[in-house]
Amino acid sequence: MNAPLKAVPDTEKPAVKRDVELESMMRRMARDARQAARVLALAPPAQKNRALVAMAAAIRRSRQAILAGNAEDQAEARRAGATPAFLDRLALTAARIEAMAAGLDMIRKLKDPIGSVTASWRRPNGMRIERVRVPLGVVGVIFESRPNVTADAGGLCLKAGNAAILRGGSESFRSCRAIHAALVEGLREAGLPAAAVTLVPTRDRAAVGMMLRGLDGAIDVLVPRGGKGLVERVQAEARVPVFAHLEGVCHVYVDAKAKLSMAKKIVLNAKMRRTGVCGAAETLLIDRAGAQHLLKPLVLMLLEAGCEIRGDATVQAVDRRVKPASAADWSTEYLDAILTAGVVDGVDAAIAHIERYGSHHTDAIVTEDKKTAEKFLREVDSAIVLHNASTQFADGGEFGFGAEIGIATGRLHARGPVGVEQLTSFKYRIRGSGQTRP
Amino acid sequence: MNAPLKAVPDTEKPAVKRDVELESMMRRMARDARQAARVLALAPPAQKNRALVAMAAAIRRSRQAILAGNAEDQAEARRAGATPAFLDRLALTAARIEAMAAGLDMIRKLKDPIGSVTASWRRPNGMRIERVRVPLGVVGVIFESRPNVTADAGGLCLKAGNAAILRGGSESFRSCRAIHAALVEGLREAGLPAAAVTLVPTRDRAAVGMMLRGLDGAIDVLVPRGGKGLVERVQAEARVPVFAHLEGVCHVYVDAKAKLSMAKKIVLNAKMRRTGVCGAAETLLIDRAGAQHLLKPLVLMLLEAGCEIRGDATVQAVDRRVKPASAADWSTEYLDAILTAGVVDGVDAAIAHIERYGSHHTDAIVTEDKKTAEKFLREVDSAIVLHNASTQFADGGEFGFGAEIGIATGRLHARGPVGVEQLTSFKYRIRGSGQTRP
Repeated sequence: MNAPLKAVPDTEKPAVKRDVELESMMRRMARDARQAARVLALAPPAQKNRALVAMAAAIRRSRQAILAGNAEDQAEARRAGATPAFLDRLALTAARIEAMAAGLDMIRKLKDPIGSVTASWRRPNGMRIERVRVPLGVVGVIFESRPNVTADAGGLCLKAGNAAILRGGSESFRSCRAIHAALVEGLREAGLPAAAVTLVPTRDRAAVGMMLRGLDGAIDVLVPRGGKGLVERVQAEARVPVFAHLEGVCHVYVDAKAKLSMAKKIVLNAKMRRTGVCGAAETLLIDRAGAQHLLKPLVLMLLEAGCEIRGDATVQAVDRRVKPASAADWSTEYLDAILTAGVVDGVDAAIAHIERYGSHHTDAIVTEDKKTAEKFLREVDSAIVLHNASTQFADGGEFGFGAEIGIATGRLHARGPVGVEQLTSFKYRIRGSGQTRP
Repeated sequence: MNAPLKAVPDTEKPAVKRDVELESMMRRMARDARQAARVLALAPPAQKNRALVAMAAAIRRSRQAILAGNAEDQAEARRAGATPAFLDRLALTAARIEAMAAGLDMIRKLKDPIGSVTASWRRPNGMRIERVRVPLGVVGVIFESRPNVTADAGGLCLKAGNAAILRGGSESFRSCRAIHAALVEGLREAGLPAAAVTLVPTRDRAAVGMMLRGLDGAIDVLVPRGGKGLVERVQAEARVPVFAHLEGVCHVYVDAKAKLSMAKKIVLNAKMRRTGVCGAAETLLIDRAGAQHLLKPLVLMLLEAGCEIRGDATVQAVDRRVKPASAADWSTEYLDAILTAGVVDGVDAAIAHIERYGSHHTDAIVTEDKKTAEKFLREVDSAIVLHNASTQFADGGEFGFGAEIGIATGRLHARGPVGVEQLTSFKYRIRGSGQTRP
């Protein structure tokens, strides 16, 4: 390590003592975050926006410091033998730093969700009840190598009036710390508490376990951002609610009544636009009744685009380059230029297949038959279901949310893209004139 | 035990074997519930309503069987030395049975939430996105002595398209079983699967632990209905989300600008209408600036109504019957004719007190000053905040929800009364015309 890491417990101390110190530091941090959350909850929109302006400016002006921290992180990761893909996720450039600042600008321009009345009604006794958006409280974000999550998640939580406790990957510690320092400058300039966005100030992995246990009730919800291993650990061990996105085993079903030209366009985009995103299609289902004219062109198009196809017997018969699909392939999220493909007996069989093998993330149908489309939209139990559009639209930005902290595959509170509104809770306000309950 | 309890593992078998059998039975039950949930999710509103009609009719016609089962439960509880309060909660009468049937009729008349579009917008690329209500899935309800929860929770879950797995207190097992048999008759008459409402068919307490672990992902959310001990256990041990209501330490703050007549009416109602409900006031705060004319009449009114008052020094000075409040009193939910009372320096001090000692459930202000009222409504971070109305309105029925499964004090998904809408999730439907993502 080239730079001294402040507040990192001395690794030469006995482990027990280290744990006690860490625990007490984390508790103090959590208490400060909780107090900051109360301030943020009552902060006027203009003050939060002033902070976002100042945070973006501080990020831009701290470019050298951020790049310097990142260079040290990269050097250390290289020495530790990190893969090129890992190093790419870790790397910051002037452009990536500008993108963080621009992201904060964009978050600032979003409608402030806090205080908006989402329902209002009058009771027969004259009381008026309204439901109004309030912040969730303290959001814990646990992420891996991408240091930009520090600014993205911190900014989005702030906009929704939540305090954030951020814990980045230990490999990106210096990068995150430099970004976080800029965010704190922004908060201070706007007169908001520094603890509104906290970065866990240690690389000690025991801190993650403490966050998963909720820091004595200080964390209201956890958001893991990273690979399947991280998300699985958080879901398995967390003692507080989690907005987690585990897998996107997304399907495109091409119905017999699909236009071939549209099917080609949508399938190619759903699979190949970017293969590493959660909304990328992993399985293609083709209606047996239309296989005659649909199957071959779709398979050849994908093979020519460089996509490996693992098919059932019918699909294998189309071209010798098609490999046989194993039982596991049907429920595999490849995140790569690989697709499982099969023929099914109409929309009912497609829906049954998706329910059996899918991950309830995002699934699409291509058809000109409105009735079949409506059946699919109604019966497929996924966070996002599309008719005649690519599964790659599974994204908060594409929904018009402006920014997202992730995509939730759970069914409670948040489902699909988690934007600023999903980072809020609500309360009821009742205005009376002396009503008592009989 | 007078009646043979089918499916209860033989208590003479070795414990390990019993556990294996129980586990396998619970898994089968969960799998059936999950399949039933899929059927319910797609069932038309009219079919669910036919089931509710038939369930109510079956409850009415099964009155003798329900009373017989209940009589056995009562006899056993009496032999075991149950308290009169416990026996009262356990007891069913013709009137209580009719109330269950009427509850099902009321649930039937509620608007069906499933399929309703709660937001809809068009994207610049022409795609239309809509957010639509879908069921949560499988709701696990763990309750204690009141057997009527079987019908209330089962009916409400059904209306929201959810399968329910119900686990009643072992003391009310025969009562719940008789009620459940009537519900199943109703489901069958409407052509819905019996597993749509499942009663855990054993008194073995190990079944509760299995539900808390989520039955291999078969339970989407748990709702504990009962005393603090039950709710605390569920919150501490559950590995699935919980809609839990822990405590209602509710406050009434009487501002200096309150009308005395209205303050008297509201305070008396909030405390004394029913002292055992979660929306009952437990603490009275009086503005020092108005104490001169407000304090004594309020204290005397309460004492005369038979309410014990535990006060701070100022309140104690009013009348020698006022007892001193201990530190613990300020955060105690008495659920009894006892009230903690104190004098505070205006609305800011009242809000700070509520934030410190309250339970974020329900709190009210009495004042004629609109600005002070709005400050209170905005700054008190409770599920329900009221101006010039009694805290006892904290109730799904009083909100116009028709029925509730409980009141949630958490901040995620459900907050306040949990009615049929809060028992739903949502998904996004996107209708395109060939859109692909650039």
